[in-house]
Amino acid sequence: MIPNTPIRPDRIAADIDALAAITEPGRPWTRRAFTPMFLEGRQWLEKAMQNAGAVTRIDAAGNLIGTIPGTRPELGTIMLGSHSDTVPDGGRFDGIAGVVAALEVARAMRDRGMVLEHTLEVVDFLAEEVSIFGVSCIGSRGMTGTRPAEWLDRTSDGLTLETGITQVGGDPRLSARRDDIKAFLELHIEQGPVLQNDKLDIGVVTAIAGITRIEVIVEGRADHAGTTPMGSRKDALTTAAWIALGVEELARALASGDAHFAATVGEFEMTPNAANVVPARVRMLIDARAEQREDMDRFIDELDRGAAAIAEKTGVTVSVPRIVSDNPPTPCNADLLEVLDAACETAGASHRRMASGAGHDTAWMARITRAAMIFVPCVDGRSHAPDEFAATDDIALGAAVLLDAVLALDSKLQGNT
Amino acid sequence: MIPNTPIRPDRIAADIDALAAITEPGRPWTRRAFTPMFLEGRQWLEKAMQNAGAVTRIDAAGNLIGTIPGTRPELGTIMLGSHSDTVPDGGRFDGIAGVVAALEVARAMRDRGMVLEHTLEVVDFLAEEVSIFGVSCIGSRGMTGTRPAEWLDRTSDGLTLETGITQVGGDPRLSARRDDIKAFLELHIEQGPVLQNDKLDIGVVTAIAGITRIEVIVEGRADHAGTTPMGSRKDALTTAAWIALGVEELARALASGDAHFAATVGEFEMTPNAANVVPARVRMLIDARAEQREDMDRFIDELDRGAAAIAEKTGVTVSVPRIVSDNPPTPCNADLLEVLDAACETAGASHRRMASGAGHDTAWMARITRAAMIFVPCVDGRSHAPDEFAATDDIALGAAVLLDAVLALDSKLQGNT
Repeated sequence: MIPNTPIRPDRIAADIDALAAITEPGRPWTRRAFTPMFLEGRQWLEKAMQNAGAVTRIDAAGNLIGTIPGTRPELGTIMLGSHSDTVPDGGRFDGIAGVVAALEVARAMRDRGMVLEHTLEVVDFLAEEVSIFGVSCIGSRGMTGTRPAEWLDRTSDGLTLETGITQVGGDPRLSARRDDIKAFLELHIEQGPVLQNDKLDIGVVTAIAGITRIEVIVEGRADHAGTTPMGSRKDALTTAAWIALGVEELARALASGDAHFAATVGEFEMTPNAANVVPARVRMLIDARAEQREDMDRFIDELDRGAAAIAEKTGVTVSVPRIVSDNPPTPCNADLLEVLDAACETAGASHRRMASGAGHDTAWMARITRAAMIFVPCVDGRSHAPDEFAATDDIALGAAVLLDAVLALDSKLQGNT
Repeated sequence: MIPNTPIRPDRIAADIDALAAITEPGRPWTRRAFTPMFLEGRQWLEKAMQNAGAVTRIDAAGNLIGTIPGTRPELGTIMLGSHSDTVPDGGRFDGIAGVVAALEVARAMRDRGMVLEHTLEVVDFLAEEVSIFGVSCIGSRGMTGTRPAEWLDRTSDGLTLETGITQVGGDPRLSARRDDIKAFLELHIEQGPVLQNDKLDIGVVTAIAGITRIEVIVEGRADHAGTTPMGSRKDALTTAAWIALGVEELARALASGDAHFAATVGEFEMTPNAANVVPARVRMLIDARAEQREDMDRFIDELDRGAAAIAEKTGVTVSVPRIVSDNPPTPCNADLLEVLDAACETAGASHRRMASGAGHDTAWMARITRAAMIFVPCVDGRSHAPDEFAATDDIALGAAVLLDAVLALDSKLQGNT
């Protein structure tokens, strides 16, 4: 399927099956960070890295790293990887595909006797998914010096994150921040339907979308549903319905441009939620994602004005939309995008540029180095669910792209820091 | 305030205060049927009935009845009353105002030495509100032979309804069905804002609206909120929002006629209700109330077609609306309405005819006798809440209307069965 590449799809399939077998019994697939099952997966991965010729270690932030020294280590490190932890009842590919692809790149190079001038590292970041401690990207935040100090006191079932990182083999008292990494590349399943719909092999990710969460509260009045005439009500639900439709309309308009935009009313709670009472209150939490900050600013602005206009029209009180959290978009490195485009051509992979609507370790790595990522297709965009699926050949083609990109970067990055 | 009437507002105010004092400590006002507090209220009421010259008993259905024999008992019974139980954290007037008004009618007649030819009875129906057994109107259903046999097996905290009725003093094995009642009248607070808005004293209730509950389920698809493009979603919330707005629009159109109509989406539950997941499913429970059955039929019909049209437009699956429960409207007795209109004129009470959007014991009594009811205003339509309020003078004027109506019926109903 892939011409002239040492990448072997059979090894990729075997690795994914091997990690899939390490799951909580009866809950395929569940291998949450900080659990015994996760540590078992890590043991398997450590051995696989060593078999690929890497020297392994756990860094202070709890990341598992396999190192293949370069012939000129003073040039610095090129790093590949993703994460091996899953959400509860998650899939076999989210994160895992990227770790296995990085591993296969290392194995393919060893098979062909290729050694980089840069040092090559394969990484399994700790706890990319929202973990038992309620936070995500613990390892990549650690490696980039952006893990909030107070997180170490977070507890889950009596365990602190500090102890959790120690049990994984890290040392939370030490800094894990790196300054030797010259480029970071991640392969990940798309978790969306775009590549499948466009019948393309690879998405070259232009940016990790920013995520802004906005709370809107509608305050109506709890009246008797039988005796209160239609014209005398302050029904929080119908006002909230107008707002939900407004959010969708606004998001569709912003998404119709070139840049990725999406907004979702993901949480919607109505009280008193009793059959015979006019709805008194609705709390909505809006999740908005933008590749470009100006789109998010426009969304927030129009949401504010739209909510006020709806309140005016219906006579029901709507709170001023409140920004609960706000992370800006992270553009991927422009030089790396060109290298990845070229690598797609070399590997014979059809490709497009696209934004990532989901968060990834790459967004944190971009704080300390050139960082970029590629997507491989996943069936129907399904993810974080047992039916998540990506074809072995698609992952293998992605690994071939990574390999080509790594080889290109090894020469391109010299003296260029 | 009320010309030429023996009705005494001071006694009404004192009775309401006395019953209000019998409440669960720290939870004004809570006197739920089958609780010790309820039995304490009943003891107070029994004494008050006896002081009004009535002979008291608990019938087989658990209703407290005070009887003042007529001079020609063979003519049958004229019954007045309502209920003394409350919802949790309810008000001082819902039901109670009707029991106290009936009591005051009896006292006023005794004061003036007036004795009817018919027997006069004052009733406190058992458990009109949704009780600890999850059902309502237990006493009036018992008196009308419409209490489902299987209800006796209902349990709450280990107590069966059968035992509950026995503890109240009833005998659930016996029929409590009456065939001697020639007319039943109930005074109740409106529980809506119409009389206050219209600045009227009395609502003469034309019908108790039918209540139909309809479940609609919207089945979308749980996709990643960040990665799924706006055009590739099956968002259950936005489809449900269109349906909620359609229900309101349809209800407003039906309510614009002469007959009462209201519809409310009282229950609205969304899953998975997670910030970063496109809503997969919404369950809605619609509460629709109609004075005229043809309005309800039209509502059901247009809801069916509207839901299908919305599903067609949005591409999200909407279940065929499912009728969960369906009670037809109960018209009040036309002769009694005329008597009540005339009594309002006699008492100098401004009045209008109107439907009741809420259910009442009167709807059950209509199964076995001429039945009708009057509303007195309550502030801002508030009910089933501690701030429920009706002015003493308004209740007293209602009692004066009841007294006039009873006197008129005593002669009008003779030989007219």
